[in-house]
Amino acid sequence: MATISVPSHVPSPSEDADELRKAFAGWGTNEGLIISILAHRNAAQRRKIRQAYADVFGEDLLKAVDKELTRDFERAVLLWTLDPSERDALLAFESTKKWHANDRALIEIACTRSSDELLLVRKAYHARYKRSLEEDVAAHTKGDFRKLLVPLVTALRYEGEEVNLSLAKSEAKLLHEKITEKAYSDEEIIRVLTTRSKAQLFATFNEYNNEFGNPINKDLKADPKDEFLSALRAIIKSITCPEKYFEKIIRLSINKMGTDEDAVTRVIITRAEVDMKLIKDGYYKRNSVALDRAIKKDTTGDYEDFLLALIGQDDA
Amino acid sequence: MATISVPSHVPSPSEDADELRKAFAGWGTNEGLIISILAHRNAAQRRKIRQAYADVFGEDLLKAVDKELTRDFERAVLLWTLDPSERDALLAFESTKKWHANDRALIEIACTRSSDELLLVRKAYHARYKRSLEEDVAAHTKGDFRKLLVPLVTALRYEGEEVNLSLAKSEAKLLHEKITEKAYSDEEIIRVLTTRSKAQLFATFNEYNNEFGNPINKDLKADPKDEFLSALRAIIKSITCPEKYFEKIIRLSINKMGTDEDAVTRVIITRAEVDMKLIKDGYYKRNSVALDRAIKKDTTGDYEDFLLALIGQDDA
Repeated sequence: MATISVPSHVPSPSEDADELRKAFAGWGTNEGLIISILAHRNAAQRRKIRQAYADVFGEDLLKAVDKELTRDFERAVLLWTLDPSERDALLAFESTKKWHANDRALIEIACTRSSDELLLVRKAYHARYKRSLEEDVAAHTKGDFRKLLVPLVTALRYEGEEVNLSLAKSEAKLLHEKITEKAYSDEEIIRVLTTRSKAQLFATFNEYNNEFGNPINKDLKADPKDEFLSALRAIIKSITCPEKYFEKIIRLSINKMGTDEDAVTRVIITRAEVDMKLIKDGYYKRNSVALDRAIKKDTTGDYEDFLLALIGQDDA
Repeated sequence: MATISVPSHVPSPSEDADELRKAFAGWGTNEGLIISILAHRNAAQRRKIRQAYADVFGEDLLKAVDKELTRDFERAVLLWTLDPSERDALLAFESTKKWHANDRALIEIACTRSSDELLLVRKAYHARYKRSLEEDVAAHTKGDFRKLLVPLVTALRYEGEEVNLSLAKSEAKLLHEKITEKAYSDEEIIRVLTTRSKAQLFATFNEYNNEFGNPINKDLKADPKDEFLSALRAIIKSITCPEKYFEKIIRLSINKMGTDEDAVTRVIITRAEVDMKLIKDGYYKRNSVALDRAIKKDTTGDYEDFLLALIGQDDA
């Protein structure tokens, strides 16, 4: 359910690297050429292009991106060129460094990647920053958020489909008790959300809804301004329904006074090869306007062209 | 610094499997033959033997071990035959299930294995128990111990040698403050111990000693009966000086009224291919008696023979 389109005949990595070199060289950068290549190669192909570029020109492709491109377009191309695990490590690093309670990058990385993908992010973090992800998360967060985020980013959730229904019942009850007591940061809530498998959590949240008459996220909306509650809802939504979660992030980022380009970029870049098709469909249903039209309205220039190439245009 | 001896000419895995089959077959089991084979093969060789045994006889070697051997000898052979990561998963599972505050298996597995080894244990745990290790640890522990053990078993510590000396100074100060306040389960103590790299922790503990005049573990001995303090000391000792840590475990297990065979087995089986030589040397220095003599005195029969084969006899 990716949205990127890869041509049926793909040039060799060194041909692509040559073309990119030409696009960066000389007086004006040929952004269209860069987009026509990179936006239409999958992660494995981009990795080979980056390797070929380094082999032939003795320079990291990202260096050229850094020197020749600017602003939102530069950032989008940079993130897109990185390997998914390196990219997530970078996003996690940035959001840890300037961490604030509304940050969603860590939650997304912890909750919408597979267990093995999250592991690769943690290894890429070691390689790039010479520290561990959890070390930085623990050092830059405090109190309830630390209690929540450290186990979240270190989890290696079991990914089998096995579900223990009596456990789902008892933990739904436990969650309901704690929520009723407004003990939102209780260690039992955190334990359940950060350690149980996604299949088990689905069962628990279903039990919760059946038994107590509300979806858990509705009960977690007691105080819409509470940032910790909002983080709990983001965790639950990104686990149970990632495409709806991401649709909402894009919707809010576009509808803001002044588009939040960082969030739009992050979601499109990280999902274009995963579930962007579902996010686009959801966006249309929810907003009665196609995502590509919304993007066209809110962005400009090469940045716009690049995002549109990644999400695919409906008439394309 | 392993203590097992592997012969210069090793039979093929299927020859070993044949011999083991003979040792298990018939009226009496030939324990000596079993020891002469398994105690003298390394982990990779044992894995191949187990595979060959299953291929040829359509039965897991561990099944034969279970049927034909008994008691401490059975348990030692079983643990030895398992792959190191499977074995650690089993040990972690057992100690989580009947968890008590003096349990050391989880701490050993979290602190004396490499980051990648710990990851393999977590994956083996998934495969074997259809749950995650942290899920079970979180569900079976409570309060301060949960706060300590969950991040401990989920850590993927950075393993580079880089040390930040100013961080070591500030965190040594932080540890000292909390210890002085007797705030032993403070989240900052737990954060430092469970997330920092081993190299960084060495620097921090050295700073602590230099700055405050005592090794940190001495200051953590305020109440020798406090089980949480004892766990903190075990973490610090097993990280900074695993061979001394293991020597002490063996010493206390042997000197107990009634040897603690489980602990002796666990340490010898898990360290025979790692650092058993250092543990043995340390044992001799600390007790003025060779470990093999102490084992001979305290154990009997096939169990004794097997342990001695694993730790190597000084006159051998």
